[in-house]
Amino acid sequence: MQEVTRYIQTHRDDFERDLADLLRIASVSADSRQNSETRRAAEWVAGQFKQCGLAPEIIPTAGHPLVYAETPAVPGKPVALVYGHYDVQPPEPLDEWITPPFEPTVRNGNIHARGATDDKGQMLTHVKGVEAWLNSVGKLPIQVKFLIEGEEEVGSVNLAPFVERHREKLACNAIVISDSSQFAPGVPAITYGLRGIAYYELKLRGPKQDLHSGTFGGAITNPAGALATMLAALKDADGRIQVPGFYDEVLPLTDRERAEYRALPTTEEQFMQSVGVDGMFGEAGYTALERRWARPTCDINGLTSGYQGEWAKTVLPARASAKFSFRLVPNQDPKKISAALQKFLEARVPPGIQMELVDHHGAPGIVISLDSPYMRAATGAISAAFGRPPVFVREGGSIPIVNTFSRQLGADVLLLGWGQNDDNTHSPNEKFNLNDYHLGTLASACLWEEISRLPPTKQ
Amino acid sequence: MQEVTRYIQTHRDDFERDLADLLRIASVSADSRQNSETRRAAEWVAGQFKQCGLAPEIIPTAGHPLVYAETPAVPGKPVALVYGHYDVQPPEPLDEWITPPFEPTVRNGNIHARGATDDKGQMLTHVKGVEAWLNSVGKLPIQVKFLIEGEEEVGSVNLAPFVERHREKLACNAIVISDSSQFAPGVPAITYGLRGIAYYELKLRGPKQDLHSGTFGGAITNPAGALATMLAALKDADGRIQVPGFYDEVLPLTDRERAEYRALPTTEEQFMQSVGVDGMFGEAGYTALERRWARPTCDINGLTSGYQGEWAKTVLPARASAKFSFRLVPNQDPKKISAALQKFLEARVPPGIQMELVDHHGAPGIVISLDSPYMRAATGAISAAFGRPPVFVREGGSIPIVNTFSRQLGADVLLLGWGQNDDNTHSPNEKFNLNDYHLGTLASACLWEEISRLPPTKQ
Repeated sequence: MQEVTRYIQTHRDDFERDLADLLRIASVSADSRQNSETRRAAEWVAGQFKQCGLAPEIIPTAGHPLVYAETPAVPGKPVALVYGHYDVQPPEPLDEWITPPFEPTVRNGNIHARGATDDKGQMLTHVKGVEAWLNSVGKLPIQVKFLIEGEEEVGSVNLAPFVERHREKLACNAIVISDSSQFAPGVPAITYGLRGIAYYELKLRGPKQDLHSGTFGGAITNPAGALATMLAALKDADGRIQVPGFYDEVLPLTDRERAEYRALPTTEEQFMQSVGVDGMFGEAGYTALERRWARPTCDINGLTSGYQGEWAKTVLPARASAKFSFRLVPNQDPKKISAALQKFLEARVPPGIQMELVDHHGAPGIVISLDSPYMRAATGAISAAFGRPPVFVREGGSIPIVNTFSRQLGADVLLLGWGQNDDNTHSPNEKFNLNDYHLGTLASACLWEEISRLPPTKQ
Repeated sequence: MQEVTRYIQTHRDDFERDLADLLRIASVSADSRQNSETRRAAEWVAGQFKQCGLAPEIIPTAGHPLVYAETPAVPGKPVALVYGHYDVQPPEPLDEWITPPFEPTVRNGNIHARGATDDKGQMLTHVKGVEAWLNSVGKLPIQVKFLIEGEEEVGSVNLAPFVERHREKLACNAIVISDSSQFAPGVPAITYGLRGIAYYELKLRGPKQDLHSGTFGGAITNPAGALATMLAALKDADGRIQVPGFYDEVLPLTDRERAEYRALPTTEEQFMQSVGVDGMFGEAGYTALERRWARPTCDINGLTSGYQGEWAKTVLPARASAKFSFRLVPNQDPKKISAALQKFLEARVPPGIQMELVDHHGAPGIVISLDSPYMRAATGAISAAFGRPPVFVREGGSIPIVNTFSRQLGADVLLLGWGQNDDNTHSPNEKFNLNDYHLGTLASACLWEEISRLPPTKQ
């Protein structure tokens, strides 16, 4: 392991140069005008594996290709699978970037570019960790497989079917994903839970067309009024969701979790300042962190009805609609929730209104056991690299592919984020701290060593 | 009068061509990009008066100009003032128009275009009636003044101060306004009551920018959720408005009025079919007609928040807003209502939300005496032109300036609507029946004759 560490320490400039090379490629998966750039990013990643002496595959899909590579099998030792993505979000609005999104620039120890943290920089730590093993020791202590996709930012639509069809090829004991954040600068974290999602669009239709609100107002139900009333009914004054059975299968927070969250170095005042509000509200009986990480919620994502232009228009709108979503926690079932919601809303449709509930997509939440030996291995690796043990956090958002991996491969998922919360993911001036890049690379290299010391496991 | 009638009958094609010319002008007063079109409409109307040998004025205001014209004074005879407007509502949603809003098209005897009935077509009947007198008899039996504005659809903000400053210039005994509907095809009506209005925009602001609804959802108040809850609180389950004191000064319906409304040739089934709903709802204890004409209401006119595009975006919006309005009846005071509403909403702002209530415009409701001699003159003119006497109705909409005229000029207001209830006012596919256009022109011409027979009145 000393040779590996030395390799990483003496190749910092090379690693940074390679990261900048990858960041110069405008692999915007949502933008078909950038298809050749996206392809070039896949080839660049494959090229990294080739340089280490591996035999990568570029696997075509209906969309952007997958890059697959693996180190030699190590009999009797666990197998790890690294998942990441080489595609990036669109860079717009361009005029808010201090330096252009595909011209990586280092300022204050951070490299700024679209994809710096999400996910090119974080993904590359694992590639560089393997390179360090292969170019110093000559082999890895366990087998590591890589599956790097190019469609994460457009919903990973082709990845789930691929995983289902190639369970043998991808067989592993642990799945390692670095596409999230540390708790704070200097406070590394392991994310052991993600919320699920159930996303809907409620469409109400009243009169056959928009009417004059003076001539007709009062005679019939206003669809926008009906929408407000139906949406308001979703929660009570204590922030509790009113759909019958909604909380029945919610996995409660343990006393240990609640105690650990309370011990984290953060305050609600800091949080309020960071988002710019002067007060907070949510489900009664829980802290804001508990509500974000471990309690289900309902948020309206969009409202549309009637006249939205300048000044005033006296219209009684024919239609009104809302996009809204529940964040789910284990063990809530999005299908059961959808059925209960449909019934709840149907019972509240006022006279003269037609309702349609569109079920956009759903995914359950997930929690990974803190007692998993792979979680302990990751804790050891991060402690060794960052000089302090990680805190254990959950994330309020969803990474739908985590459910697929967990279900299809039956392996523990390790979410080891090297980013920071202020990395401007999906926003202008995205950045990644170069020190975290090197510490993440070292932690990744250590992780294979830590895992190799675990007792053998059936695959 | 025979020459006048003949002129109207022989100039039908010319009158229709002129109407189409005016309808081609996109004089959308709310849309500043159309300012030159709105100006052009004013000039077009002035041009009509010039062609009759009158000397119109285009009077600048802080917004869109007024057009003023008058026929020669007739000593010892009453004076009438015609009010109308050349501006129109925005045409959106454009894709619901069968033919484009500013390309007038005749189908089934109706001319379809934005402004056809509201108010270009109806306003023009009075211009054409005067043209008929001047081009056949050579003069009118009474003096008729015209005041045609370009800001009716944006609240007539500059008209009221003008009327106040020019009471001498506008002095009259009767004010004639055609900007409403007949009761039904073949059933002309005089509108003796209008509802007032109080139009608001409620703007809520939460976090300083849009947030990821997964990472942040549950921690803070969602502005769109707050909006739904605050709007839903405005009415109870019986459709009663909950703002304290809202009903305190409402003029109750008389038994005579309720009996007359019940005798009108209409059913709620016909109404439901005409607007395309399968059920009705409104304030408990009143028929739909009573609710539309003589009871105050609250309607949401527009909702805006968050993501409104295709598919799904997991955003916790920073802002949410609603346009909504009360329709008021005599003797409710919009100022008192605004103050009570502000207090009602302020008490319901949840933590972390900043509220702004924009008071767009307000006007009280009005009821005009059925015993006025000018009401009898109008009854005679309509009977002569349409072949049957009018019914007396109220209108749910507002013409705020009617209050100003009534108060400032002390004259009786005659609301003589030539439109139909299904004219799609403020909606796609607005129309005006061409036969009603010509009958309205004849009725207008007859009205000056009827008024000239009334005994002299002090001005």
